[in-house]
Amino acid sequence: MERHFDEELNSLKEQLLMMGGLVEAMVNQAIKALVVRDASLVEEVIKKEEEVNKLHLNIDELCLQLIALRQPLAIDLRFILASSRIISDMERMGDLAINITENTLELLKVPPLKPLIDLPRMAEITQKMVKDCLEAFIRKDTLLAQTVIDKDDEVDGLKDQIFRELLTYMLADAGAIKRALELILVSRHLERIADHATNVAEDVIFLVKGKDIRHPRVYEERSHTA
Amino acid sequence: MERHFDEELNSLKEQLLMMGGLVEAMVNQAIKALVVRDASLVEEVIKKEEEVNKLHLNIDELCLQLIALRQPLAIDLRFILASSRIISDMERMGDLAINITENTLELLKVPPLKPLIDLPRMAEITQKMVKDCLEAFIRKDTLLAQTVIDKDDEVDGLKDQIFRELLTYMLADAGAIKRALELILVSRHLERIADHATNVAEDVIFLVKGKDIRHPRVYEERSHTA
Repeated sequence: MERHFDEELNSLKEQLLMMGGLVEAMVNQAIKALVVRDASLVEEVIKKEEEVNKLHLNIDELCLQLIALRQPLAIDLRFILASSRIISDMERMGDLAINITENTLELLKVPPLKPLIDLPRMAEITQKMVKDCLEAFIRKDTLLAQTVIDKDDEVDGLKDQIFRELLTYMLADAGAIKRALELILVSRHLERIADHATNVAEDVIFLVKGKDIRHPRVYEERSHTA
Repeated sequence: MERHFDEELNSLKEQLLMMGGLVEAMVNQAIKALVVRDASLVEEVIKKEEEVNKLHLNIDELCLQLIALRQPLAIDLRFILASSRIISDMERMGDLAINITENTLELLKVPPLKPLIDLPRMAEITQKMVKDCLEAFIRKDTLLAQTVIDKDDEVDGLKDQIFRELLTYMLADAGAIKRALELILVSRHLERIADHATNVAEDVIFLVKGKDIRHPRVYEERSHTA
């Protein structure tokens, strides 16, 4: 039974990594479709979403079974509960990659507004965050989790920079407004993907250190009264 | 022990309702601050967020304890796992209400662009969705959950309508661009709150009927191969 449980836990980890790899590829291709102006890449993203959704259901069911049938110890129970939260985060990252493709399809109908530099940069950092947050979870690596959390500020900075730049385009030329708006929305979707990766990274630290950094102020109050 | 478990389960439900009530009030006040142009309401929203975060941690811990110490039966286990997902959704709805107040504070620095009609309407529907999805969960009421899911299309329709209207303002007058952008972002935050309410409603149906409507296509495939 013990060995069986370990195998199931390993299968859970493998499926989580598979789901993470798919989501990472979705973000990559969604932005690539926009940068190289290739609508066929959008199809790829949509196909991957179906796989992500399947994995979501499979992993959800596996978590439930592991808890119900194996009655895991506290540390394993926390890991399994965190897994069931993390797959929601990943599934939403996939949804957001789909949202990006919707903006992309609009943008491919018209000539490009400008060469894209900050957006691909933002996407690259975000993708790395997606990859690393999951690695950190599987390896229970809080240092790696912390690098993910630190990168979130960089992503927010790029988002603000992109917003300001596109605003000047809009102010200068009414013909740029629609395209600039779509690009702003793309940057918001990326920002939200990075937020989800940050949620996962915070979950890792909570899991390992038993310290809830998700709401630092609340945690401090609780420690004082503990 | 049995009676103890029931009491804990009731306490879980009470705390969930409390958290839901707070989030609902946050959405209400965030939009009211914008409509009546009263920055003091923003303070209220921020205060409530702290309470929401505290409840999030408390409920999370309670769910863990209920599973670890009581080893609940499958139906209760599903309810507890769903609770732990739902509080993430609610916490993010609260974050989104905070995002709305950030746009509001920007908008209060400048004269109003136009009287707001569709946005308050959109907020009203969204608020109702927040309230109803949680009621549906506690009462395991799939009919009520379905009304929440149905309302999501209405919210999406309003979001598109708001986008188109504000786009014409931007195209007509460069001086309107910044304000119109902020209003568009407010509508996006509301849309996301409604999405979270829809997630919760889908969880209710999954919980009661054991049918996963979160990924309908995947579910059908699975049923056929079952």
